[in-house]
Amino acid sequence: MEDCIFCNIVEGKSPSYKVYEDEKYYGLLDIYPASKGHVLLITKKHYRWVHDVEDFEKYWGTALKVKKAIDKAFSPKWVQYLTHGIIAHAHIHIIPRYDEINDFWKNVIPKQGKLKFSKVEMDDIAKKISTAF
Amino acid sequence: MEDCIFCNIVEGKSPSYKVYEDEKYYGLLDIYPASKGHVLLITKKHYRWVHDVEDFEKYWGTALKVKKAIDKAFSPKWVQYLTHGIIAHAHIHIIPRYDEINDFWKNVIPKQGKLKFSKVEMDDIAKKISTAF
Repeated sequence: MEDCIFCNIVEGKSPSYKVYEDEKYYGLLDIYPASKGHVLLITKKHYRWVHDVEDFEKYWGTALKVKKAIDKAFSPKWVQYLTHGIIAHAHIHIIPRYDEINDFWKNVIPKQGKLKFSKVEMDDIAKKISTAF
Repeated sequence: MEDCIFCNIVEGKSPSYKVYEDEKYYGLLDIYPASKGHVLLITKKHYRWVHDVEDFEKYWGTALKVKKAIDKAFSPKWVQYLTHGIIAHAHIHIIPRYDEINDFWKNVIPKQGKLKFSKVEMDDIAKKISTAF
């Protein structure tokens, strides 16, 4: 789909910190990470919502594969999944957490935009995850 | 598991606003709803995390079934999924949204605890969803 940032990334027209790719799915680092290793798992085909994805179950199974690679790379204390829809192309947020689960109100989702990694650091994070599959 | 609120609900020892049940999964209204029709899909067997659930893909396929029933019952504008882990028994939050997707920072997750429904209203919401499968 034209003017869709995720379609452009899949087609190689826009850059990304890729961590995973197979026939149907593409994993990349969120450039506004909520935590180190925050991955977006997108579909290669354009769908508006995750619910629209044809093989919804397999899509989540792939999210679990990504989660396991993040575990190997960074040993977070826990990992959460989130779907939203600001970008109108199916994506699952996979967010490793290094804090304790203690106060739901404070830490339901870590605030995005606080963390900054350099390009070199982002490349290194992506490499650590992509080599952990 | 003893002293696990979700195990107690599954076993009928604690009350819940049930919206769905099959051999492996149990859906109930969150008693601190983030929105009208906010459902928790839990496993009948005790697992600490959603990632631990044996048939992870099927679990998410069931979440999609619940999402479709919520759609039929309440026609939300969109629906999101979230996993967290304050309660140490696998659960997927399925959260219908009636607001626009426009400002990620403000509305990534609607604040729980703001909305209150009476017991009669909760019963009615649960009934509307459970009859929409």
